[in-house]
Amino acid sequence: MMLKELREKVYEANMDLPKHGLVVFTWGNASEFDRESGLFVIKPSGVDYDKLSPESMVVCDLDGKVVEGDLNPSSDTPTHAYLYREWGDKIGGVVHTHSAWAVSWAQAGRDIPAYGTTHADYFYGPIPCMRGLTEEEIEEAYELNTGKVIVEGFAERDIDPIAVPAVLVRNHGPFTWGKDADAAVYHAVVLDEVAKMAARTEMLQDGVAPAPQYLQDKHYLRKHGPNAYYGQGGAH
Amino acid sequence: MMLKELREKVYEANMDLPKHGLVVFTWGNASEFDRESGLFVIKPSGVDYDKLSPESMVVCDLDGKVVEGDLNPSSDTPTHAYLYREWGDKIGGVVHTHSAWAVSWAQAGRDIPAYGTTHADYFYGPIPCMRGLTEEEIEEAYELNTGKVIVEGFAERDIDPIAVPAVLVRNHGPFTWGKDADAAVYHAVVLDEVAKMAARTEMLQDGVAPAPQYLQDKHYLRKHGPNAYYGQGGAH
Amino acid sequence: MMLKELREKVYEANMDLPKHGLVVFTWGNASEFDRESGLFVIKPSGVDYDKLSPESMVVCDLDGKVVEGDLNPSSDTPTHAYLYREWGDKIGGVVHTHSAWAVSWAQAGRDIPAYGTTHADYFYGPIPCMRGLTEEEIEEAYELNTGKVIVEGFAERDIDPIAVPAVLVRNHGPFTWGKDADAAVYHAVVLDEVAKMAARTEMLQDGVAPAPQYLQDKHYLRKHGPNAYYGQGGAH
Amino acid sequence: MMLKELREKVYEANMDLPKHGLVVFTWGNASEFDRESGLFVIKPSGVDYDKLSPESMVVCDLDGKVVEGDLNPSSDTPTHAYLYREWGDKIGGVVHTHSAWAVSWAQAGRDIPAYGTTHADYFYGPIPCMRGLTEEEIEEAYELNTGKVIVEGFAERDIDPIAVPAVLVRNHGPFTWGKDADAAVYHAVVLDEVAKMAARTEMLQDGVAPAPQYLQDKHYLRKHGPNAYYGQGGAH
Repeated sequence: MMLKELREKVYEANMDLPKHGLVVFTWGNASEFDRESGLFVIKPSGVDYDKLSPESMVVCDLDGKVVEGDLNPSSDTPTHAYLYREWGDKIGGVVHTHSAWAVSWAQAGRDIPAYGTTHADYFYGPIPCMRGLTEEEIEEAYELNTGKVIVEGFAERDIDPIAVPAVLVRNHGPFTWGKDADAAVYHAVVLDEVAKMAARTEMLQDGVAPAPQYLQDKHYLRKHGPNAYYGQGGAH
Repeated sequence: MMLKELREKVYEANMDLPKHGLVVFTWGNASEFDRESGLFVIKPSGVDYDKLSPESMVVCDLDGKVVEGDLNPSSDTPTHAYLYREWGDKIGGVVHTHSAWAVSWAQAGRDIPAYGTTHADYFYGPIPCMRGLTEEEIEEAYELNTGKVIVEGFAERDIDPIAVPAVLVRNHGPFTWGKDADAAVYHAVVLDEVAKMAARTEMLQDGVAPAPQYLQDKHYLRKHGPNAYYGQGGAH
Repeated sequence: MMLKELREKVYEANMDLPKHGLVVFTWGNASEFDRESGLFVIKPSGVDYDKLSPESMVVCDLDGKVVEGDLNPSSDTPTHAYLYREWGDKIGGVVHTHSAWAVSWAQAGRDIPAYGTTHADYFYGPIPCMRGLTEEEIEEAYELNTGKVIVEGFAERDIDPIAVPAVLVRNHGPFTWGKDADAAVYHAVVLDEVAKMAARTEMLQDGVAPAPQYLQDKHYLRKHGPNAYYGQGGAH
Repeated sequence: MMLKELREKVYEANMDLPKHGLVVFTWGNASEFDRESGLFVIKPSGVDYDKLSPESMVVCDLDGKVVEGDLNPSSDTPTHAYLYREWGDKIGGVVHTHSAWAVSWAQAGRDIPAYGTTHADYFYGPIPCMRGLTEEEIEEAYELNTGKVIVEGFAERDIDPIAVPAVLVRNHGPFTWGKDADAAVYHAVVLDEVAKMAARTEMLQDGVAPAPQYLQDKHYLRKHGPNAYYGQGGAH
């Protein structure tokens, strides 16, 4: 069996999604990319979490084709594949959920503004909501084009996917990523927490402004980059 | 004892309601229809969930009359009976709850718009809120007429109960259904989740529009019908 | 030791409050009245729930004086005492909590309108918010006068405490009651659920109207009174 | 090993933060001050709660310098140190969290008004939101200056930190304190509960006013000071 250790890791990352309250039923998936082989491991489609196992994970190539596995991979596999194809030098794990607060912003079609340090500790700037896919893009190759819209959206708005490891797909929901599947799960948790706080902030104050840029800089940079001093020297 | 296996199934479906946080105290009930005998099995009325057992389930006919069982069936039995009488060729399970988000929409007297793919994955169009019953309908046969208002409402608005397996009864709460009791429970969970997301979406954006129809089509049809490709070939 | 069985019952009722998520720390108390002796049993003041026992419950008379017990009774004891003194022929249990949704309505100074059947199943009409106590009433005898304001408020508005077994004390929080301590706990749970649903209903629809009176009548009367048909013949 | 007992106490206080649902991942810290030695014990930075132990706690002096411990102390250590330096005669424990409701008020840049008795039982007046730090203050010594802004803010507004044991740091989150670490944790729980109730109160009533001053006086003073009569004679 290929990528035995990675299967175990991706299995555990998937199991963490319901533990953190991010998924209902089967509404989420985590994957991790193995740079050496150019393959990634992802959850099978529509299988209950309590029936998952490391062995049931599916190995795919960067075209989203199954390389090993008896089950269909997640229907979102072409999105994962495209993100690794384009950003695989920077990111090693991807997560998709329908976590309720993040979905609400995606359905509202809005970026999540950086209202405070909880946000700035992990996301350097607003979490962008992408444009909706056109009817043609949906009919042609929905999941692949979802990936394309994300990558193009980040390029157009000049956002570094390392600095902002999350996106809202319009009328759909969030994708997050990171150096591995665990980091992507971590960011999925932070995203929903930040989405909740931002919604409540607006409820409390009409026309509230984002946190000052210098405060965002301070918090992001005390956790990330060469001058980070948060934690024990091992960045998250 | 009649329908022994079905009693077990309906018992388990009822027990799933508090597990999913959908019911407080005794405020919910699940039933399943046996097409062969023309009977259905339903929870007894007002009995604590921790005192339920497969044996305490009640067997009723399509007039809502008790065929076997020592306890009174759920007070909502005539609604279940009417839904099976009218739609029994299409649906095999019915659930009623007072889940808080769905009730809030029912009390507001509003359809739940299809704001995103979480909704569209299970409900093909808005989840309709029915007209309220008249004083005469309530006095004459409240629970039976609740069923009639639902079936007439779907017919008038030309909604297929298979494509939209949920309804809001005005000032009351939700009913959901599916191919069996488990599917009806599943839809009850999705309904409350979708109701929550929709409320928050409106909180974040005044005048927000439903998801484009072609996106709704895509999501519903990738899970349902002959061209479905979500999951492992067994539709929910 | 006096009223041994009642102490056990009141202890259990108090322990149910944190189980139902109604109290944080020590912010709640339940009592039950023994008509025969004219005494009631109540939780001690400010003691952690995990240190309570049947023996630590306090027995008081209808002036709120301690008859048996080593600990101070709840600081709200004079309110409980006054309710039993005035309504002791009708009610046998009282509960006070700071449950978050009910408190929010009390702080807003508003009655909770009867927007639906979940409300009408237990409360026959709006749950009234009392006027605030005057400075003089607070200085003279705060907790006793809280009871007086409740009883006078119900009399002035011609509300039967059996039909509406809950009240909001302005800027403070809810009291609920019932035939015994268990029923008062039950109503405390329903009150917070109904308070939550009502707040969300207003969020979804400006200027929403209460449920039609005939629907409220139907639901209240199918559960209560001589023609009740909900449950197994034993009313809650 | 120094301050063995205090390490145990601070460890337990830190562990209580996730138990009360106040922290996600590592987003919180509790400390306690030892007046005799002039040192305080604090959580290490960025270590998972399930890997903490009494031994991993860090001992610091009032300049925030590590006196004993193998790990880096919390990045917020200079804030804790400054609060003990300035208020160490009054307070013995400090807690910082990113609890969601309190953060939402901090991001909105608003004081939390005292809308009711739940608030007044613990906080004598509104919970103040401090001014934001300037760019210079952030660049110079962010965490130390956070402490300075708090102490100056309380002095300018003439707020006694004993009477209001909580603050909102603008665009960041809450700090709470008390006679020891346990009391600071307690106040952190109350703060988030009160922040939630206040937000919902405003949702229910535009332009709602704080509770009358005489009601706030009554509730605060029945729990605190020489005439307190809540509890068993031992103030919290």
